[in-house]
Amino acid sequence: MSLLVTGSIGIDTVKTPHGVSENCLGGSAIYFSMAASFFSPVRFVGVVGADCPFDLNEIFAGRNVDLTGLEIRQQSKTFRWAGSYHANMDDRTTDHMELNVLAEAPPKVPEQFRDSRFVFLANTAPALQIELLEQVKKPAFVAADTMNCWITDHLGDLKTLLERIDCLIINEDEARMLAGEHNLIRAAQNILDMGTALVIIKKGESGSLMCSADGQIFVLPAFPASEVIDPTGAGDSYAGGFMGYLAQSGRTDFETLKTAVAYGTVTASFTIADFSLNGLTGTSRVEIDKRIERLRAVTAF
Amino acid sequence: MSLLVTGSIGIDTVKTPHGVSENCLGGSAIYFSMAASFFSPVRFVGVVGADCPFDLNEIFAGRNVDLTGLEIRQQSKTFRWAGSYHANMDDRTTDHMELNVLAEAPPKVPEQFRDSRFVFLANTAPALQIELLEQVKKPAFVAADTMNCWITDHLGDLKTLLERIDCLIINEDEARMLAGEHNLIRAAQNILDMGTALVIIKKGESGSLMCSADGQIFVLPAFPASEVIDPTGAGDSYAGGFMGYLAQSGRTDFETLKTAVAYGTVTASFTIADFSLNGLTGTSRVEIDKRIERLRAVTAF
Repeated sequence: MSLLVTGSIGIDTVKTPHGVSENCLGGSAIYFSMAASFFSPVRFVGVVGADCPFDLNEIFAGRNVDLTGLEIRQQSKTFRWAGSYHANMDDRTTDHMELNVLAEAPPKVPEQFRDSRFVFLANTAPALQIELLEQVKKPAFVAADTMNCWITDHLGDLKTLLERIDCLIINEDEARMLAGEHNLIRAAQNILDMGTALVIIKKGESGSLMCSADGQIFVLPAFPASEVIDPTGAGDSYAGGFMGYLAQSGRTDFETLKTAVAYGTVTASFTIADFSLNGLTGTSRVEIDKRIERLRAVTAF
Repeated sequence: MSLLVTGSIGIDTVKTPHGVSENCLGGSAIYFSMAASFFSPVRFVGVVGADCPFDLNEIFAGRNVDLTGLEIRQQSKTFRWAGSYHANMDDRTTDHMELNVLAEAPPKVPEQFRDSRFVFLANTAPALQIELLEQVKKPAFVAADTMNCWITDHLGDLKTLLERIDCLIINEDEARMLAGEHNLIRAAQNILDMGTALVIIKKGESGSLMCSADGQIFVLPAFPASEVIDPTGAGDSYAGGFMGYLAQSGRTDFETLKTAVAYGTVTASFTIADFSLNGLTGTSRVEIDKRIERLRAVTAF
């Protein structure tokens, strides 16, 4: 089924203990689309300025990503982010950020994308996520991401959003902040009580947790990785693998959702193994499926 | 098969956000034995002073724990520990500790325990763990625990111990410290390189990880718990469920070890649900087996 993503396109500079990647392609919609395209065609909505040095048509060539929703604003500048990961690879510091075009009006969802059935609203102001979602006629399954600043400063909008989506995909620290509860099982329940039917809490190297409003739970470790080069984009790749698999299968029953979580987990494991998009562009659906079998083997008892 | 444990018996005072439990029974050998006894007879070796207010014969009545190795020293005082858990239930502060009898010579392994096939050496000075192990004639599978102070101050003894045991069961922070490596997969490999054939890294609410020297890996989330009352003894209960299941099955192939990790995980989930031993004494093998099926259901995909 059709899969729409709205999110950022960024010029990233990333420092990790393994090296530096300067002015490389990043952004939530980019990682999501590359990840999801292993499973399903992707409809891309995002905006850059005239300074964007990347040719997205070339980058996504042969990958089944429809860039009709890519808007290039001649008077604007592209979103830039620079960050440094600490030695533990868990924590990071934002060294520099220019919202640029992301601080302007969001792009429009093209007419031919408005019948999309699966929708991922990558992290941005919840009011903008709502505005983007309202342009889609009758989505079957909508997932969204959010982050600490929206929880702190735009909680009302975020709660309105939660009543309109099917699934929130969120980091553990942000889940605790949103829920006001340290225990993650109870935090998940508190978030479900805000109106979404499903919540997925990402725990980095400790895997993820999915809880549904009808009381179902799924917990999965991360794919065991002995080498983490650059965690940037892991969360959006996880969401891409998850939503891509759902759109491919066309189902959202809990068994399918569990397999989708496993695909999200495995897809993210490729992202973190190299800088920028290199981990994703260097793999294939066959390799992803091999890791799914490996993940099943190392977690089954 | 026969299962021997050597470890501490303590008078604990525990504060958590849920309340205070003063002068309750604790200690590694106590938690381990109560947990392991659901699976296998346990041979107990430990020492208390004359001040010990607990009748262990009564506490373990009907539980298949052989207390022949319990030594009561009339001139000594029992080990005491007081600790406070922080609001997140992950971190704790030691408020007070008296080693007392634990600072003296260790107890002897009784003659009739020296043919034990499965042995767990709970946390103490590695030189004492070696001394205790040398009293066992021909063990089939030996596991040990350790902690930060031995890694820092007695690393030589600890490395000697690692060459003599089959399995180290260790917390993630201590694994990182011992291995000098943050990534847990690589940390596990570094520890295996020190001579033990198997390492299990416990990650609290994020589950655990088992790696073998022949390259096998198993990762398992914790049992999803919405209520953690008192984490004291969780690690020793995990070890008890793990070793108890191995002793019961009499096997140590990797498939059996994986199931044993699951039993350790589930047994610990009962411990943390109440103060002191109440979580363990209030359950049964039938309830443990039900949680094994539940854990399988919430982790399989």
